[in-house]
Amino acid sequence: MTVYLIGAGPGDPELITVRGARLLASADVVVHDRLAAPLLGLVRHGSELIDVGKMPGTAAVQQDEINAILVERGRRHECVVRLKGVDPFVLAHGAEEVAALAAAEVPFDVVPGISSALGAPAAAGIPLTVRGLTQSFTVLAGHEDPMQVPNRRWQALADLAGTIVILMGAARIDKIAARLIEAGLPSETPVAAIHAATTSAERIAVSSLGEIGAVQHLSPTTLVIGEVVSRRAGHLGRERKAARIG
Amino acid sequence: MTVYLIGAGPGDPELITVRGARLLASADVVVHDRLAAPLLGLVRHGSELIDVGKMPGTAAVQQDEINAILVERGRRHECVVRLKGVDPFVLAHGAEEVAALAAAEVPFDVVPGISSALGAPAAAGIPLTVRGLTQSFTVLAGHEDPMQVPNRRWQALADLAGTIVILMGAARIDKIAARLIEAGLPSETPVAAIHAATTSAERIAVSSLGEIGAVQHLSPTTLVIGEVVSRRAGHLGRERKAARIG
Repeated sequence: MTVYLIGAGPGDPELITVRGARLLASADVVVHDRLAAPLLGLVRHGSELIDVGKMPGTAAVQQDEINAILVERGRRHECVVRLKGVDPFVLAHGAEEVAALAAAEVPFDVVPGISSALGAPAAAGIPLTVRGLTQSFTVLAGHEDPMQVPNRRWQALADLAGTIVILMGAARIDKIAARLIEAGLPSETPVAAIHAATTSAERIAVSSLGEIGAVQHLSPTTLVIGEVVSRRAGHLGRERKAARIG
Repeated sequence: MTVYLIGAGPGDPELITVRGARLLASADVVVHDRLAAPLLGLVRHGSELIDVGKMPGTAAVQQDEINAILVERGRRHECVVRLKGVDPFVLAHGAEEVAALAAAEVPFDVVPGISSALGAPAAAGIPLTVRGLTQSFTVLAGHEDPMQVPNRRWQALADLAGTIVILMGAARIDKIAARLIEAGLPSETPVAAIHAATTSAERIAVSSLGEIGAVQHLSPTTLVIGEVVSRRAGHLGRERKAARIG
């Protein structure tokens, strides 16, 4: 018996891993988020489906309750899949679920998903590192109030001189951009805002740190900040062009 | 006609995406690295296979030559796959290949792979972010001489107070650890060294920034530095236990 934490990937159901898809198809129980819903077609007939996703306007299932479900089903079944949007271990509650399973001595495994931090820029043709330009990138959550984050952190981000990828920051991009400029990043630093990456609703807007705050961005948007954005190359192939007409 | 840059993932052939596997199975031409070799079983009979990987002791195919092959084959065939180890856009030459294709007006697309930066910690049960502990991570290449990297960068890494993931740093971990300690990270900061992640040769060693330099690490090793390492949970399921007996 094993509980598999599986990342569904950034949006396109085909961006789940082969291993994730195979385990999903053989699961006795699938405990899933809302974001992971497009993949439920892979689940075999007769499996138990448990939706623990947060729906707008309804009460979310509490994290404690999700942990308890995983432990209880994990003890009773051969193969339990916890299907999570994107990746279980990046800005998600995967750590808490795994800790609960370990404490209960229920065997588990983690099957990573393509993080939006990597999948969104890839879909937009933006490399995260470019030899001779930048050899590092930092991924952070943008849902904290940027005024509450210590100055030293923003300074460190500017000093690192690497690519910055911000997840869950659409609503606060104006403040984030202002703090990065204060910390010393030039206001001309290019920024890409990638909305609904790898889905038919995908939209990519390229601007600069000085200008990005003036535009409203809807969730989910991945922000990529740095010179790599200027290396974006834009000749998309047939499959993706078709997908983008949404 | 399209050239698809596809990431093979961190090691386990089943960690390629479903989309990557499908395109690989329908390709007319597959231009591949050495790391991507375990996936060649998916290629259909009659496809042209071009090995451009760097083999120890033989001359590597130059990047210019790889770019030229992609442009030439891309003009002649419906579906050309450039299969790269791990991910095309993280510390790889994907940006150069895409730029060459764009310049030649050959349509392309990028199918991301699971980066070792995320796949290796996931395999080891280490979350990259933990609510209340750290909400960011920085990925960097460790193959540069740490003495040549400006002090300000090491200081910035320490000040960020996020998880640090170092790829290609096995040979220089002693110097990297020394510089991070100089920059202010406590020598007790936990470090995980994950060798050959997600393959049957995978080995995980957990130590501290103060002690990691004393141990020799073979390539490829992914280093994860930060308090998240202490949240590692270790009850592996059946599939992975079987895989680890290598």
